[in-house]
Amino acid sequence: MRQYQCFELAFQGPELSENWAQIDLSATFTAGGASKTVKGFYAGDGKYLVRYLPETAGEVCWTVSGLLDARGSEICEPAQAGDHGLVKAVETHFAFEDGTLFYPFGTTVYALAHQDDALVEQTLETLRTASFNKVRMCVFPKDYDYNHNEPPVYAFEKKADGSWDVARPCIAFWDRFETILDRICAMGIQVDLILFHPYDRWGFSRFSQEENLVYLDYLLRRLAARPGIWWSLANEYDLCGAKSLADWEGIEAFVAENDPYGHLLSNHNCFCFWDATRPNVTHASLQTKGLTEIPRWIQRYQKPVVIDECCYEGNLPHFWGSISAREMVNRFWRCIASGSYCTHGETFLAEDEVLWWARGGRLKGESPERIAFLRQIVEALPGPLTPMPGGWVQMALLSDEQVDAALEQVEGQWKEIARLFVKSIRRMEIDDRTAHIAGEHEWAAHAGEEAYLWFNDRQCFGQQTLPLPEDKKYRVELIDVWNMTRQVLREDASGSTLLQLPGEEGLAVLATRVG
Amino acid sequence: MRQYQCFELAFQGPELSENWAQIDLSATFTAGGASKTVKGFYAGDGKYLVRYLPETAGEVCWTVSGLLDARGSEICEPAQAGDHGLVKAVETHFAFEDGTLFYPFGTTVYALAHQDDALVEQTLETLRTASFNKVRMCVFPKDYDYNHNEPPVYAFEKKADGSWDVARPCIAFWDRFETILDRICAMGIQVDLILFHPYDRWGFSRFSQEENLVYLDYLLRRLAARPGIWWSLANEYDLCGAKSLADWEGIEAFVAENDPYGHLLSNHNCFCFWDATRPNVTHASLQTKGLTEIPRWIQRYQKPVVIDECCYEGNLPHFWGSISAREMVNRFWRCIASGSYCTHGETFLAEDEVLWWARGGRLKGESPERIAFLRQIVEALPGPLTPMPGGWVQMALLSDEQVDAALEQVEGQWKEIARLFVKSIRRMEIDDRTAHIAGEHEWAAHAGEEAYLWFNDRQCFGQQTLPLPEDKKYRVELIDVWNMTRQVLREDASGSTLLQLPGEEGLAVLATRVG
Repeated sequence: MRQYQCFELAFQGPELSENWAQIDLSATFTAGGASKTVKGFYAGDGKYLVRYLPETAGEVCWTVSGLLDARGSEICEPAQAGDHGLVKAVETHFAFEDGTLFYPFGTTVYALAHQDDALVEQTLETLRTASFNKVRMCVFPKDYDYNHNEPPVYAFEKKADGSWDVARPCIAFWDRFETILDRICAMGIQVDLILFHPYDRWGFSRFSQEENLVYLDYLLRRLAARPGIWWSLANEYDLCGAKSLADWEGIEAFVAENDPYGHLLSNHNCFCFWDATRPNVTHASLQTKGLTEIPRWIQRYQKPVVIDECCYEGNLPHFWGSISAREMVNRFWRCIASGSYCTHGETFLAEDEVLWWARGGRLKGESPERIAFLRQIVEALPGPLTPMPGGWVQMALLSDEQVDAALEQVEGQWKEIARLFVKSIRRMEIDDRTAHIAGEHEWAAHAGEEAYLWFNDRQCFGQQTLPLPEDKKYRVELIDVWNMTRQVLREDASGSTLLQLPGEEGLAVLATRVG
Repeated sequence: MRQYQCFELAFQGPELSENWAQIDLSATFTAGGASKTVKGFYAGDGKYLVRYLPETAGEVCWTVSGLLDARGSEICEPAQAGDHGLVKAVETHFAFEDGTLFYPFGTTVYALAHQDDALVEQTLETLRTASFNKVRMCVFPKDYDYNHNEPPVYAFEKKADGSWDVARPCIAFWDRFETILDRICAMGIQVDLILFHPYDRWGFSRFSQEENLVYLDYLLRRLAARPGIWWSLANEYDLCGAKSLADWEGIEAFVAENDPYGHLLSNHNCFCFWDATRPNVTHASLQTKGLTEIPRWIQRYQKPVVIDECCYEGNLPHFWGSISAREMVNRFWRCIASGSYCTHGETFLAEDEVLWWARGGRLKGESPERIAFLRQIVEALPGPLTPMPGGWVQMALLSDEQVDAALEQVEGQWKEIARLFVKSIRRMEIDDRTAHIAGEHEWAAHAGEEAYLWFNDRQCFGQQTLPLPEDKKYRVELIDVWNMTRQVLREDASGSTLLQLPGEEGLAVLATRVG
């Protein structure tokens, strides 16, 4: 047994011919005076497994009860290098259990597990060399444009009437599925596992709520002891016509209550967000194209915000699948410079209709290497970024007292003009104001006083003044986000710092504390 | 006297040494049974003028009363070629009085009239060869970044205490100002004349309301008979700290009541729009960067919408003055493909601080020739464009009955998904929804069934399906908005038309009816 690695107890018993989803088997693990009870599962061929994720090193005692009785103890060795435990939300960012920061740079291969072995191999090989550290993928197969293939195997056996029998999970499916998950996680990639989605011709999206919970129970028994998995209750929960909001609340509660470890949990929308202030929701997983609102969401949720779909690099005849590589890269920078995270996807239509976004294969686009460049920059920062307060529009949303305090910084005639700004912005209708922000926005974030990042996006500033702290020194770099160059403009800037810039789009300015 | 040309009656009288702004002089012109009374003004050196704009041909009788008594009659000749009368708002677009459509393609030279003669000459020469047909300019000089020069002459004489004496307009100013206006109008360029603005160190923005109306009275007496002028009550009315909303309502009413001809009248904002549903407001003159909301505004106002400031092509260290030429061009296309109009401005910082945007001089940017290319396309259309209805988000704002009717067009499984779209979008908070629209929007407009325009903007569609009418034929062109090329893709397309496209940004598709 080793800290942060899945530990498995295996027993042989009678073969089951029906109703093996929810067997009466559990085990209590006691370590350092604390106990955790986990449920076991039937793995076919008379094999009964109990899985446990040790989160601390030291002696662990276990007792199995139910269909089987057993007990024992193990020494849990300290984590080996490279194992950090589960990723958890820490304030508005992410970190592994051992404290190592985790900055998600995700992609999507929604139907990865439902492709034939050759395509899965190719996809895993691509993931091995690409620079993504999170992948969104579904438990169930996908039926949608460019996604009509039958999967090799399904999650359940069928009843005599042809309907799915959730009481009999298909062992071959789950074995294959786990192998894929393990191979992805072994590359240091987190799996944002999508438990339900609407694009379905087989009926998996139309289970009764009772069936949903049987399925989830088995899934949690098998998978929860893996540290590299996040629970994404759905992709586009709001397009799952067979589920009510109450069903989703029930699903959310069931997963949270039956997950012994507190994996990350979110629920992804098409249009209306799932409320990320709900206690069981660990972070916001948002589909949106309105990136200028990210600081407001971070402020409201006080949890990490991941933009899990802001359109994909590609050439499809759909809005969601036809942004350029430049735009994909810019959206990553906008998210990062707003204190949030972004997810890539790629939808180039080829003759074989193997689009990375859902089926995998090879990446064809030009954004991944630029996203990797950004990831390097972010991972070298002294800490996670949070949105910089500021902007007139944000100021207008403050109380009178807060506005007065903020305006103490403003000098001379600008103080009066700033008051007029605030007065007028407060009179704007919400949609006019939001649209205004969407069209003119400062993408700026900071890591305390250690680092400041401005993504100038489409602004072609010939000059820029950085309001750096007076009492600290900063190295200031100009970053070309497309050409992937970094140029040091200043080695020891302090206070108000005027930069001469080339007046082009696609530049970022990074100030990092030195000395 | 000629139809659509300013007619002037000149009289000699006593020289006035004070209070010549509001002399008791008026004239009634009667033509075709209808009478119009206009006020005359003192033009210095004992000269008294009455100006009149004949809007129909035929005999015109006039009677002068007040300080002078005179009467006479003239034959008003029909308009000469090139004279079309005032521009008026016709539904959501513009047309001259003779019915000729007018599509504004404007620029700004706010402080044009406050530069020295050499710079004014250079500016007029630039306007002569550029392709703009509207210019926004101010009556009063401008004090702002890069605009600190003293004007050659001021609109008023000063009192002994150094304050402005609105009762004594400076004749030299108004003579010079009119000459500039006339030279601009003679080039076929409309002057969107800004009556007030906040960027002022001289005190013109801090007149009492009584002084405001004296100033406006004199201005209207002198200028109203010119057909090529629009009244823009302000640039950024909401930043004029000395004026209340009631003051603005008074100014609006005064201008409307004292303008005998009904020139176009608008009031331009910085943040909160002036309400364009007000009866005296002929069109919306909006500063905004939220172009995706244009269809909503057109729908609400049922008047033309002109985006008079959506940032300027340039390299300033300000958001409003640092967009690229490509972005400026794209914003023009977005406005046009939303059924509205756009205004250019240019802010490249040079050593002499002569930025076109406010002072004039020479254009340095790359957008004007592309805007000219767009203007050619628009002027060759069979009629003005209005926004195409559609989009899920718009649909969600309809009534249940309207949604049902709209969904009758939708086939198969998409009907259910469309209902889920509508249901979810209706649950969105207004700001989330607006931000979503701002990030994903179809720029599409049409001229009845005569022409359809899609600006694909940043979408890199490899295919696009046009929903053209089944019973008509269309020439379909692919337009590269930056490289200014037009390629015919189809000569006689009908109904649902699938196009193969190159999958690049910056393309528009225009379908024009043939046969």
